[in-house]
Amino acid sequence: MPEDTVDKPNTVTCTAPVNIAVIKYWGKRDEELILPINSSLSVTLHQDQLKTTTTVASSRSFQEDRIWLNGKEEDINHPRLQSCLREIRRLARKRRSDGDPSVDATTLSHKVHICSVNNFPTAAGLASSAAGFACLVYTLARVFGVEGELSGIARQGSGSACRSMYGGFVQWIMGQRDDGKDSLAQQVEPETHWPELRVLVLVVSIAERKPVGSTSGMQTSVQTSCLLKHRAESVVPGRMEQMIEAVHEKDFSTFAELTMKDSNQFHATCLDTYPPIFYLNSVSRQVISLVHQYNRHYGETRVAYTFDAGPNAVIYTLQEHVAEFIQVVQHFFPPETNGGQFIKGLPVRPAVVSQELKQAIGLEPMPKGISYIISTKAGPGPRVVEDPDQHLLGSDGLPKRDI
Amino acid sequence: MPEDTVDKPNTVTCTAPVNIAVIKYWGKRDEELILPINSSLSVTLHQDQLKTTTTVASSRSFQEDRIWLNGKEEDINHPRLQSCLREIRRLARKRRSDGDPSVDATTLSHKVHICSVNNFPTAAGLASSAAGFACLVYTLARVFGVEGELSGIARQGSGSACRSMYGGFVQWIMGQRDDGKDSLAQQVEPETHWPELRVLVLVVSIAERKPVGSTSGMQTSVQTSCLLKHRAESVVPGRMEQMIEAVHEKDFSTFAELTMKDSNQFHATCLDTYPPIFYLNSVSRQVISLVHQYNRHYGETRVAYTFDAGPNAVIYTLQEHVAEFIQVVQHFFPPETNGGQFIKGLPVRPAVVSQELKQAIGLEPMPKGISYIISTKAGPGPRVVEDPDQHLLGSDGLPKRDI
Repeated sequence: MPEDTVDKPNTVTCTAPVNIAVIKYWGKRDEELILPINSSLSVTLHQDQLKTTTTVASSRSFQEDRIWLNGKEEDINHPRLQSCLREIRRLARKRRSDGDPSVDATTLSHKVHICSVNNFPTAAGLASSAAGFACLVYTLARVFGVEGELSGIARQGSGSACRSMYGGFVQWIMGQRDDGKDSLAQQVEPETHWPELRVLVLVVSIAERKPVGSTSGMQTSVQTSCLLKHRAESVVPGRMEQMIEAVHEKDFSTFAELTMKDSNQFHATCLDTYPPIFYLNSVSRQVISLVHQYNRHYGETRVAYTFDAGPNAVIYTLQEHVAEFIQVVQHFFPPETNGGQFIKGLPVRPAVVSQELKQAIGLEPMPKGISYIISTKAGPGPRVVEDPDQHLLGSDGLPKRDI
Repeated sequence: MPEDTVDKPNTVTCTAPVNIAVIKYWGKRDEELILPINSSLSVTLHQDQLKTTTTVASSRSFQEDRIWLNGKEEDINHPRLQSCLREIRRLARKRRSDGDPSVDATTLSHKVHICSVNNFPTAAGLASSAAGFACLVYTLARVFGVEGELSGIARQGSGSACRSMYGGFVQWIMGQRDDGKDSLAQQVEPETHWPELRVLVLVVSIAERKPVGSTSGMQTSVQTSCLLKHRAESVVPGRMEQMIEAVHEKDFSTFAELTMKDSNQFHATCLDTYPPIFYLNSVSRQVISLVHQYNRHYGETRVAYTFDAGPNAVIYTLQEHVAEFIQVVQHFFPPETNGGQFIKGLPVRPAVVSQELKQAIGLEPMPKGISYIISTKAGPGPRVVEDPDQHLLGSDGLPKRDI
């Protein structure tokens, strides 16, 4: 090994996207391997608006594995983090013993430093673990020279992270095997397939109380909800087929109705959990009413909502309806006038909402119920960042000052 | 017929109770006959606190059937009202033709005047149709000299009315026949069986919006919720057995847990309905949290909640816990200080809530979230009121002035 590379870490930086499920994942059949009780399907959001950036450096001079998340050092011994590190290293060893020359024998024994940041505030309440673990696994794989199917490893960090390993429309096939080898993500269509599709993240400002975390929430649901069992076994398989067909056909109304029904059914199984779990608050319920009244007014399904384990609404609609719908949201959730930008992300043209439409919706406005909207669309999967200036770790292997 | 009785109406007054289901009825398999998709079980509440009083007068001088509800004349042609009138008259004719001397041949051809009032405000949001139709059918039966099984007729007025035909603990057996002849209520245990059981109706003051009515709500649920179908077919039969056993054994913790789970599952199926139906509001959800935190603090299930098609909570508990639990409710839902009585009904002794318990519950108080509490218990079925001064109709067959 040349003298000058001895102490300079091998550094790789990648980005990975958030994904929002339209057929929901809720409940594990294996807690350790993170194997789900049903398949799920999501849309990968564009990284221009929402992404995680992760730098991994490896060096023989590092004494131990370390991790910094959003500027703060965290415990590297978190079991799921350890699962990902262990599985990537195992895969690298296997590839080397299989004779793959791209796996660097020395790197394998090196410790790593990991640094990860999100380009969106944690306060936004967006599940960042999917993007985070996808980015971690994708970056580690490049450091250790591992290629190929990685969603099975990302899955072991956070179930839904496996879907963030691909762009566009992605299904997570639940699989049947006990070892989880067939529980993998697969791209249904790329992000270029349906360019008219738009996504609006409505960030809800009222936190009525800290909700139950999804890990413990889904455990309790699996243990206590008989409706969840029925959903997983008898409802989701048919919905997966219909949803894949709707995506292939770009059939918005089927896509939208299934999305809303599946979100509602997921929250129904939370309510059937004992003690019950509530993720929707009064703003969420108002958004649901608004969407149904809006669609009813037009006599067609133009807009769909979906909610994960929190009160934020994610809206799917088509480009042609974005401007008016955002104006409707602004009317019924008047934003703080002295606050920052209400609409972030993709530009939205101004629009006028007719009195007739306002009256048809007929809800009592909830001032400041929504703090801001992120306007985005489907996007690509994880990417390598080639520019070394973008590394989050310096040549000393520690986070750069400005993170 | 003696001259002096020619124009004097035959007048009968009865009272009937409200009932609150612990295994919920939601969904009909026959809209006309009101046949449910599952059996249900309820507790009949004591009429000292909540009752309907109905006077029926019949006279050959009446030109047509008429009805007054809570002081206002209503349309007698309401289909469900017509069902009850038709079925009672049919039963009377059948009995007369079978040779029953108690059926007065002349009364059968007479028109009736009906007058009905509740001793609780409609604004309380308590489903009054069960008590109302039970009382109507019970009173009509006495006017026409009909005896025996009447719950099948009350059922055709309002499904849950059949359960108000008996006191104590009552099941409505769904039946299997297409003609509904086996879809009847049956007493499981009389009101004297479990004297320690207490009922608190928490009347919620915040009406976020007018909820979907139960008739159309359950129609939509039957049409759109796959979870409801599963519940009716595969969950409720087992729960009915467990609940009947818990009532027989006076096993409060089983009774209470099943009650809460079944309420939650009913509301889960409402959320799985498309478009979704919400009956629980933020006060309801706060009561749910409070009950679970309260029980958790004591390490046993001392209190249970149940919610019908509205935000009001009905609490089941044992006499020994009433005073403290009410004090807890008053602490977390501070009542209006200048308002009327906060606790109505059965007297409740004062109690002190420990700081420890308040901290264990740890919720943010919601001032004026609950307007008042009705304290009551299980009670008897419909009764005839013998005192003619209590008749709601005067000797002219019209409502008395003071109703």
